[in-house]
Amino acid sequence: MHQLRKPYLLFLGDVTLKSDAKTAFGLRDWCAEDVMGEWSLPAATVSLDLPRVSPAEAAQRGAGSIVVGVAAVGGALPAHWLPELEAALDAGLDIVSGQHTRLSTFPSLVQAAARSGAKLIDVRHSDQAFPAGTGRRRSGKRVLTVGTDCALGKKYTALALTKALQARGAPATFRATGQTGVMIAGAGVAIDAVISDFVAGAAEQLSPDNAPHHWDVIEGQGALFHPAYAGVTLGLLHGSQPDALVLCHDPARGTIEGYPNHPIPDLQVAIDRYVEAGRLTNTAVRCVGVSINSSSLSDAQWTDYAQTLRAQLGLPVVDPMRGGVQALVTALLQS
Amino acid sequence: MHQLRKPYLLFLGDVTLKSDAKTAFGLRDWCAEDVMGEWSLPAATVSLDLPRVSPAEAAQRGAGSIVVGVAAVGGALPAHWLPELEAALDAGLDIVSGQHTRLSTFPSLVQAAARSGAKLIDVRHSDQAFPAGTGRRRSGKRVLTVGTDCALGKKYTALALTKALQARGAPATFRATGQTGVMIAGAGVAIDAVISDFVAGAAEQLSPDNAPHHWDVIEGQGALFHPAYAGVTLGLLHGSQPDALVLCHDPARGTIEGYPNHPIPDLQVAIDRYVEAGRLTNTAVRCVGVSINSSSLSDAQWTDYAQTLRAQLGLPVVDPMRGGVQALVTALLQS
Repeated sequence: MHQLRKPYLLFLGDVTLKSDAKTAFGLRDWCAEDVMGEWSLPAATVSLDLPRVSPAEAAQRGAGSIVVGVAAVGGALPAHWLPELEAALDAGLDIVSGQHTRLSTFPSLVQAAARSGAKLIDVRHSDQAFPAGTGRRRSGKRVLTVGTDCALGKKYTALALTKALQARGAPATFRATGQTGVMIAGAGVAIDAVISDFVAGAAEQLSPDNAPHHWDVIEGQGALFHPAYAGVTLGLLHGSQPDALVLCHDPARGTIEGYPNHPIPDLQVAIDRYVEAGRLTNTAVRCVGVSINSSSLSDAQWTDYAQTLRAQLGLPVVDPMRGGVQALVTALLQS
Repeated sequence: MHQLRKPYLLFLGDVTLKSDAKTAFGLRDWCAEDVMGEWSLPAATVSLDLPRVSPAEAAQRGAGSIVVGVAAVGGALPAHWLPELEAALDAGLDIVSGQHTRLSTFPSLVQAAARSGAKLIDVRHSDQAFPAGTGRRRSGKRVLTVGTDCALGKKYTALALTKALQARGAPATFRATGQTGVMIAGAGVAIDAVISDFVAGAAEQLSPDNAPHHWDVIEGQGALFHPAYAGVTLGLLHGSQPDALVLCHDPARGTIEGYPNHPIPDLQVAIDRYVEAGRLTNTAVRCVGVSINSSSLSDAQWTDYAQTLRAQLGLPVVDPMRGGVQALVTALLQS
């Protein structure tokens, strides 16, 4: 399980495309209270509109980590970023990275970390050994976001649910299973990086026993209908033993992204398959509603679509970006 | 993918319990033609009844590897075994081990391997990077053994099917997905040791395009009904894209081994769930029969049991140890 030291300084390198800084924007938006400021090289043209703070100053003011908040081309850090990151390590900040290439492959970073005792943390990887799953029922309540495909709002929905539960006075914790989620939460595990034998076990550790009315809101991964990643999805589902599922869907997608021969399933079929699979570790699991990424629909289309789907499925249908997730929270608190 | 050098010399350490030498007996029985002999320390009391050949002599006679065919207590090799293994490396043999502790954690073995250029191969681990699954249909035919639980005959059934297909003149290759299977085949991947994101991709690589009437007989792992390992099973199923499934079952088991709160499913339910899941990557998948581990039944009980099950399921029911797998081969060749 990764444990990150907050608050963060967000590092943007010399980014010139906003879309390359998706991670930094996500952190600014989802854990603003944990972000001290931003730092970048002179050539950068994108800003988060946060205070500029140097690594040394950030460390002095109590920051815990500098987070690489920008995608590096090819997954490796460019050499000219390294002096800034070494300075951050020398000042005592940990480096948090979600790049493919591990921080430990850069000798100058390893040396700087050794000098100061700061840590190099690759949230895309998982070096921890987890036990196998036990199937033991745990106390507390759990909701897992599941999807008809990858990358259509499972993290976003889980974060929105967590905030909305807390706003209604319900104790709730976001449980991160992907790299950006781990950065936002400051803890968690990149579940798809775990050795396959231990995925369910890692998911069990991620949401341990809790108070009876506490909700763990677990970020889902992949999809049961995905030809590459369904195994990850199933292991996470079994280890999470959710009481409630929220199905996430994007009506603009006809086929699994990148897999044009694999159609997105009918939503009722998807719900039935997730509930059937989830019953293995929690016989009381049920789907409490659907979260739609409706960005492809006009307001009028969205109203129509949501109404039709609500009637079809007999479940609340929300878009977190269009009206929020209150209907899902109500359904959760009634369960 | 592991690639092992045959023929093998089987090393028994100082084993005194036959059950600890399960791996060695399995190799002797399943790939006798690849086993040159056995070697052990003076304190050993168990023998495979094979010619005793020293590592140096084995190397001279063309052996490729010495295989640790005995379970070491705690998963680590005892210090007093190391001189024999170093001698084997010095003679040019690779060491093949299925222990938890990696061979590379023993400095004297690393040094000896460096001296001779021989390899240290841990078949329980997987250090190869695999791509994600593609879902692309491959040529050739595939059968996967699946189960109602772990450890009830999926490897044994796959090996028996391979031999029986070959005996009927059908081109067939056993595809190993577990450590003992990899040793027997001399190639394969411990699929449960692969990073979860790449399980389906590894399974795709394990059974590449082949001639139209060639059968890959793929060793199954885990069970869809297993609270710890179902994700591995599902990824292997999707990547294997089998045309045919054989369900393996042990009628003596009422619950998943080690999970007393998890009942073994009804066999028709199990078949339906496997076929439903398998359709994601091969819409024509079907279950061609059932392979029973009937060791708990008397001859009369077995006859009754098999007859009842055949009538219930409308499928061939065999025990590879009691009458062989001919009925399954016939079903495969008719498909």
